[in-house]
Amino acid sequence: MLWAFLGIDIGGTNTKVAFMRRPGRVLHQFAVASETFVGPRRFVSRLGRIIREKCGDLGLRVEGVGIGAPGHVDFRRGILRDSPNLPGWKNVPLKSLFFRQFRTKILLDNDANIAAWGAFVLELKRRPQQMVLITLGTGVGGGLIFGGKIYHGINGSAGEIGHMRLVPRGALCSCGGRGCLEAYAGSYGLLRRARELKAGRASRLVIMDPRALHLAARRGDKICIKVWKEAGEMLGRAIVNLSYVLNPEYVLLSGGVAQAGALLLEPARRVMRQNAFAGPLKPVKIRVARRPNSGALGAALAAMENA
Amino acid sequence: MLWAFLGIDIGGTNTKVAFMRRPGRVLHQFAVASETFVGPRRFVSRLGRIIREKCGDLGLRVEGVGIGAPGHVDFRRGILRDSPNLPGWKNVPLKSLFFRQFRTKILLDNDANIAAWGAFVLELKRRPQQMVLITLGTGVGGGLIFGGKIYHGINGSAGEIGHMRLVPRGALCSCGGRGCLEAYAGSYGLLRRARELKAGRASRLVIMDPRALHLAARRGDKICIKVWKEAGEMLGRAIVNLSYVLNPEYVLLSGGVAQAGALLLEPARRVMRQNAFAGPLKPVKIRVARRPNSGALGAALAAMENA
Repeated sequence: MLWAFLGIDIGGTNTKVAFMRRPGRVLHQFAVASETFVGPRRFVSRLGRIIREKCGDLGLRVEGVGIGAPGHVDFRRGILRDSPNLPGWKNVPLKSLFFRQFRTKILLDNDANIAAWGAFVLELKRRPQQMVLITLGTGVGGGLIFGGKIYHGINGSAGEIGHMRLVPRGALCSCGGRGCLEAYAGSYGLLRRARELKAGRASRLVIMDPRALHLAARRGDKICIKVWKEAGEMLGRAIVNLSYVLNPEYVLLSGGVAQAGALLLEPARRVMRQNAFAGPLKPVKIRVARRPNSGALGAALAAMENA
Repeated sequence: MLWAFLGIDIGGTNTKVAFMRRPGRVLHQFAVASETFVGPRRFVSRLGRIIREKCGDLGLRVEGVGIGAPGHVDFRRGILRDSPNLPGWKNVPLKSLFFRQFRTKILLDNDANIAAWGAFVLELKRRPQQMVLITLGTGVGGGLIFGGKIYHGINGSAGEIGHMRLVPRGALCSCGGRGCLEAYAGSYGLLRRARELKAGRASRLVIMDPRALHLAARRGDKICIKVWKEAGEMLGRAIVNLSYVLNPEYVLLSGGVAQAGALLLEPARRVMRQNAFAGPLKPVKIRVARRPNSGALGAALAAMENA
């Protein structure tokens, strides 16, 4: 029987699970369809059964559990307050529900915070004093690691980097606000912009996701290059603002949109270099995370840290 | 002979000095003309002599020294890197220069960080986990207190809240950038906006400082009310962005511009309330600091904390 830390990354579509013994050494990982419509209690008991079976097969015993959940998490009480991705899940005591499954120490946190922790441990050689993760997916979120700890804020909702307002009366965001970073650098915003610019033009190209937008730009499609440039400039403006306030050593970028690499990063870096007041910006290192999906690993690592 | 902590707030015009025995109990304070043109070494030896004489008169002995300096401070090494307010002062080893004067523990930090520490100790009944100070003077700066400590960032230049860019191609700021908070909510920006709006209008009113602008608005001057409203809205946008990222318990406002109170705060709070995505914003408390000039006291308190 081998002890292992269990990481669970609950998503609207899939839930990812990882077993880890030491940082970076993954024993096993798998994903299951979330089917969260069955409600949180049945979701947790079903997932608990699957994981216990897997533990039996692999000869593992769970030493501690880390869980990342999308939405507003009260990490001190272990409660998921609400979530745009998990309809109907309100004030769910996930920590105690999972405790009944595993009878060991449980840590529950917001998924972006957990991803930030995973990136902090796995992506950087030494642990910096300040790290900001920006998750660039359908939405844009983030997490902050200061002094080797996840920074939560007063009610656990720090790191909502995607909703920094960069343009008064700018593009409409999923949150109902205008001019948010997410409205420009989230995949929904990127694809909308591509459609806007392509409207009325003869083009057989159908852009369905950030990867297609990335490939089209690399093939030289002028409109797609322009879309990435605009998104990168907005990302640069957001990083400038974050850097003036937080002067972090690292800004890490993860998620599907970040995989565009230089298409996104070059305009962002150019915006940063254009500032005459450069002192707080100069030491900031910007990196694309190599592991695009470190949610379940981050959760296992957070369990380890919590042990 | 009474032990006391010494706080020094170095300004471009005046340098303020305070002796303190316990938090809030000020034994004595005074100000001297900085005359920083004599250079840092003569400045420090002259100030040292004045303070030692004062100590003799009052029967005080210095137990520890805290110093706030305007500009970029390497607080770990105790060096003032450079300062827009102290022309010619470059890479000044202020910590060791002051050590030669007082032969006791010296703490050197950026003046806005020191002011944030002072506000944190003096303005709030209990010490919150997260506090942001925004200093609204000629320029706009700030300091962050997380987990009961000043947050410095990687090279000590965190808290440059005044240079968050809120409007692409917006008003020109002293830093050379455009659309910074400071260009709208610093007194220079406020007065410029008042002059713009008054240009071409018959008006005998000459607005020279934020206090006059405040009084004119309270007397019902429509243009002055509009200027405060615009500044308050920009301040609100900055606090929204800070709150999405940092979700702090407190945002404190200090400096001459903050004395406008409701003229500035009501539009700021209205901007905050307009956001549908309210979770990270709701718990944030905004307060105007009661002590507008707590620099020297903050420095004495920082010396106490450092002891």
